[in-house]
Amino acid sequence: MKGILFVLSGPSGTGKGTVCERLLEKEPLHLSVSATTRDIREGETDGVTYHYVSVPEFEGMIKNGEMLEYASYNGNYYGTPKKSVADLLDTGHDVLLEIEPQGALQVKSIIPEAVLVFLVPPSMQELKNRLITRGRENSDEIKERLAASQWELRQADKYNKQIVNDDLDRCVNEVRAYIAEKRGERNMIEALINEKV
Amino acid sequence: MKGILFVLSGPSGTGKGTVCERLLEKEPLHLSVSATTRDIREGETDGVTYHYVSVPEFEGMIKNGEMLEYASYNGNYYGTPKKSVADLLDTGHDVLLEIEPQGALQVKSIIPEAVLVFLVPPSMQELKNRLITRGRENSDEIKERLAASQWELRQADKYNKQIVNDDLDRCVNEVRAYIAEKRGERNMIEALINEKV
Repeated sequence: MKGILFVLSGPSGTGKGTVCERLLEKEPLHLSVSATTRDIREGETDGVTYHYVSVPEFEGMIKNGEMLEYASYNGNYYGTPKKSVADLLDTGHDVLLEIEPQGALQVKSIIPEAVLVFLVPPSMQELKNRLITRGRENSDEIKERLAASQWELRQADKYNKQIVNDDLDRCVNEVRAYIAEKRGERNMIEALINEKV
Repeated sequence: MKGILFVLSGPSGTGKGTVCERLLEKEPLHLSVSATTRDIREGETDGVTYHYVSVPEFEGMIKNGEMLEYASYNGNYYGTPKKSVADLLDTGHDVLLEIEPQGALQVKSIIPEAVLVFLVPPSMQELKNRLITRGRENSDEIKERLAASQWELRQADKYNKQIVNDDLDRCVNEVRAYIAEKRGERNMIEALINEKV
């Protein structure tokens, strides 16, 4: 039986990273290892933290259609090689990807059976507060993130499911219930396909 | 606010037509008028039952990319013109299409925000019984339908939702609850987009 590819996405500041960590603790889900052109840092392991590749190698992978999705941040490429995801799915493992909305839609266009979950902020004011509080971006960057979130929200109807991240525990439980629902659907269809008539 | 396009599909004999009729009685949903090349029959009205067009006209529409999906049965074309669906959605109406699985996937590839519901038979044996009981197909045709349903079941994971049609009332209620969920998501996203921060 093939695994299911779950893609968790949503605007910057909706808590994708935290929800993803919780899911990995509680569910039998596998993270695929991303590729990047940035330098390896102390404590990281090639093939575990990332696949570290050169810029020409990464651009070759893009050109050969080997990337499921990719983006560049601060002059470095980051992306998901198709092969690492396919290997996990083919061996029956459910896979979790945590990516930006643009990447999530790239994945869906390549793998239509990918299950896309859009994390929704409780309000735009709350999203702004979270971006300010976490302190990763300066005020111009926060404005950019909020502007980007407008476009991202308009893509939310292309996702399989929208889940509000108002309270972390509640949100994680809702995502887990949805994962269980999708696993149930897969098993039901599998049983029908194998039924002899 | 734009309408939502719901597409109801599933293998032949799962009860698409009956579920669709019930939904139209109970929900504010609009059927878009299909185009066909077959002759108009007594009691039918052009532009209401179907848009009746000639074969060259229909083939011209396919060539110009004006069809959302189409298929041919018994030597006649049947299809959904993009324009009839777009006009309804743009004026805020939710639209319901009841089509074969192949057409449903065509729609999804053109309109990624279409909400696809796959009606699942309770068992393959039950599906076979229903095809025999309704008596529309001969035994060779029933074998073909059952063979086709194998392929169709393998596409079910590309749908937004799978709903078992074991009991008509229960099934219709589940579809209605899902429609309500999707309307709720749309309204929530709309509110966020309009929120001033």
